[in-house]
Amino acid sequence: MRTKVKQLFLNKEAYEEKQITIMGWVKTNRAQAQFGFLNVNDGTYFDNIQVVYDEKLDNFDEISKFRVGMSVKIEGVVKLTPQMKQPLELHAVCIEMLGDCPEDYPIQPKRHTREFLRDVAHLRPRTNLFHAVFRIRSVAAMAIHRYFQDNGYLYVHTPLITCADCEGSDQMFKISTLDLKNLPMAEGKVDFTKDLFGKQAFITGSGQLHGETFAMAFSDIYTFGPTFRTENSNTKTHANEFWMIEPEMAFCDLEGLMDIEEEMLKYVVNYVLKECPLEIDFCDQFVAKGLKDKLNHLLNSKFVRITHHEVIDLLKKSNNKWEFLPSYEDDIAKEHEKYITEYFNGPVFITNWPKDIKAYYMKLNSDGKTVAAVDLVVPQAGELMGGSQREEDLEKLLNRMSEMHVDSKEIDWYLDTRRYGGCIHSGFGMGFERLVMYLTGIENIRDAIPFPRTPKNCEF
Amino acid sequence: MRTKVKQLFLNKEAYEEKQITIMGWVKTNRAQAQFGFLNVNDGTYFDNIQVVYDEKLDNFDEISKFRVGMSVKIEGVVKLTPQMKQPLELHAVCIEMLGDCPEDYPIQPKRHTREFLRDVAHLRPRTNLFHAVFRIRSVAAMAIHRYFQDNGYLYVHTPLITCADCEGSDQMFKISTLDLKNLPMAEGKVDFTKDLFGKQAFITGSGQLHGETFAMAFSDIYTFGPTFRTENSNTKTHANEFWMIEPEMAFCDLEGLMDIEEEMLKYVVNYVLKECPLEIDFCDQFVAKGLKDKLNHLLNSKFVRITHHEVIDLLKKSNNKWEFLPSYEDDIAKEHEKYITEYFNGPVFITNWPKDIKAYYMKLNSDGKTVAAVDLVVPQAGELMGGSQREEDLEKLLNRMSEMHVDSKEIDWYLDTRRYGGCIHSGFGMGFERLVMYLTGIENIRDAIPFPRTPKNCEF
Repeated sequence: MRTKVKQLFLNKEAYEEKQITIMGWVKTNRAQAQFGFLNVNDGTYFDNIQVVYDEKLDNFDEISKFRVGMSVKIEGVVKLTPQMKQPLELHAVCIEMLGDCPEDYPIQPKRHTREFLRDVAHLRPRTNLFHAVFRIRSVAAMAIHRYFQDNGYLYVHTPLITCADCEGSDQMFKISTLDLKNLPMAEGKVDFTKDLFGKQAFITGSGQLHGETFAMAFSDIYTFGPTFRTENSNTKTHANEFWMIEPEMAFCDLEGLMDIEEEMLKYVVNYVLKECPLEIDFCDQFVAKGLKDKLNHLLNSKFVRITHHEVIDLLKKSNNKWEFLPSYEDDIAKEHEKYITEYFNGPVFITNWPKDIKAYYMKLNSDGKTVAAVDLVVPQAGELMGGSQREEDLEKLLNRMSEMHVDSKEIDWYLDTRRYGGCIHSGFGMGFERLVMYLTGIENIRDAIPFPRTPKNCEF
Repeated sequence: MRTKVKQLFLNKEAYEEKQITIMGWVKTNRAQAQFGFLNVNDGTYFDNIQVVYDEKLDNFDEISKFRVGMSVKIEGVVKLTPQMKQPLELHAVCIEMLGDCPEDYPIQPKRHTREFLRDVAHLRPRTNLFHAVFRIRSVAAMAIHRYFQDNGYLYVHTPLITCADCEGSDQMFKISTLDLKNLPMAEGKVDFTKDLFGKQAFITGSGQLHGETFAMAFSDIYTFGPTFRTENSNTKTHANEFWMIEPEMAFCDLEGLMDIEEEMLKYVVNYVLKECPLEIDFCDQFVAKGLKDKLNHLLNSKFVRITHHEVIDLLKKSNNKWEFLPSYEDDIAKEHEKYITEYFNGPVFITNWPKDIKAYYMKLNSDGKTVAAVDLVVPQAGELMGGSQREEDLEKLLNRMSEMHVDSKEIDWYLDTRRYGGCIHSGFGMGFERLVMYLTGIENIRDAIPFPRTPKNCEF
């Protein structure tokens, strides 16, 4: 029976002087003349376990030559070592190689560049860095599920395949089962009646509209799934495939929305700090100095709430030389976000944006010029969530769709949410990789997702 | 401040004689001359709350005409009614319409056919049936996350976009950002160097191979995400988009795999029975009589473990007239699964399948003829999970790939799991809709997923 290393570390007293069996991978091997130390990791725990072996073992010579990366089975006796750096050791009784590893194994115990590790994305989870990042990612995902489920939200799986191109088909991947080399044509167009769905199909970039239909039945819902963008943009923050969370709440206005966003983010940060102390310490030390302080500071901040207009006032009043001039009609730039979060020294909700730069479904404010949208910007990471109160008035919604050239016929079903017992409701979207970057201090989205997909890059 | 109906029902004593505000949707309105009853549901709880209103309210006449589907705000005083069918009532002090609903609202309080409800998939969560099904779906998803996370598994988001067509590109959707009407051609082929990823891309049907690379770092991992199949097949159990769970465990053999599958399934069933008692009762009464007994019986069963060879022996010995003759070389048919689960009156693991009908990555047994695969079949639903011990020997794996015409160059990175510290490992896949059907008794996959995608059907 195999003991997992996490169990061993978390319940070490119960294992004292017990003989156990572990299985894992060799991280280092320091062999001396009469004894040696194997550091072994089985992936269940961030820290390695130190295995002490000596010449009394039959295969001592063989073990002395064990290479990094081999998988091994070790029977040994647990010794608590409170005076040492590591809290326990395993004194080996029997050591067996399970799987060999050649000398040219790419993941050696030294510093590798992030760029190199992206080229071996299938091996990089074996490094300390990606062990930490992907464990934090997994735990953060669980924190999100727990927050919403514990608060009674329904988890809804909105569809990825869609035939409505109201997002603009340029921004969505086209999908097909047809032979692309010999597409059937009719009247100069591709004849999609021969395709699997009988019409042109896409993979979508948002589940919000479907989510709203479920909020009109369950009050509180959330989505959590993969999302796709076709942007041909090679930056540190863009990927063509990423994961997103889109909660939607009936009977909830903009103020209520901000309450939920703040509560959720604090819940997730607190959960990760508690569940991943070793991983956070590692990131704090080797990825982004001050990370832990930043996260703890967030927990103790009351998030500022300020309008877009007030933000522009502040930016204009400052003596900064802006690359992009602040304007009441425009989006705010990265440099502005940075200034604002530093000005308030914490997360800031920016509300009531000019309607022309926001989506058609956002509620028009009584000034006729702004919409009840809110972006949450946080120190260092910038925008973390974007949301809005939705326009619940059918006439106003149709006007906005018409102004913004959105074909309402394509999504007539969506308009039923306004025809049949509509109500005030709000929702937001959070890019999950953006959150992972915030939680780990990782600066490139390619290092926050297991197998990144970016322009010209779809390996593995 | 709004009180959610779930909180009210779960903590009713705390609310006795308190004045509260609820918001929700009118399910029925029975108006009499001097008083009336509104049944209101806010989606947080399966049962409606009964609101009593009387002529003392200013807008009594208006309320008497409230229609099904309207959204409403109700202030009232909570009265416990232990002698009645419902445990509490709300005596209205003030009732306000929030959102109107016309008389031709499609979801009236009567029985609708499932076919009709599929045509209004955006409204069907407002019915009792789909309230129950989609709440159970959400809770079952959470149960899966809890089971794996509580046991230390890493949740890994494997990519959906892939450029390796080792699954056979006929079985995957092709994706593109190019203009399909004017595809760039080079030497008679589509010139995918001009596409976003610089080569032809697909959306994949499995995250297993990527999952294995993570199991070689974290020991225990699982995926849970959407999956795509291009099958042009109109049956009750096929959809082109569905969700799947794919766990993968290092240092785990076929017996260990079955232990995990059994433990996980029992955990999920028990969790849903505890968290969704009203929804399960509803399904037991209106969807599949005997559902609750079936689920409880599963909890108390020790799953049978039997080889494919032994299954064929049993089928041959029986006096049944088979449509498909049982054969040691072939798959077993639906009628066989039914016989076997009835024979053992419970779930059955069928192991050691003929190699020619199974995938290349499954471990070849010492007989040279069978592989260490296992299907779990359950009464009524048939196959619920399929898994195997993986072939960890590189040479044998390459032989099997060659035999089955799988291009090993396309997935050379995958083979690194066998080159660098490989070990015995195992994994399985479970279709999530299949599980939802099992838990609810729903017979058509179109009713187990919010917005089904099937051939010629991609509405909403």
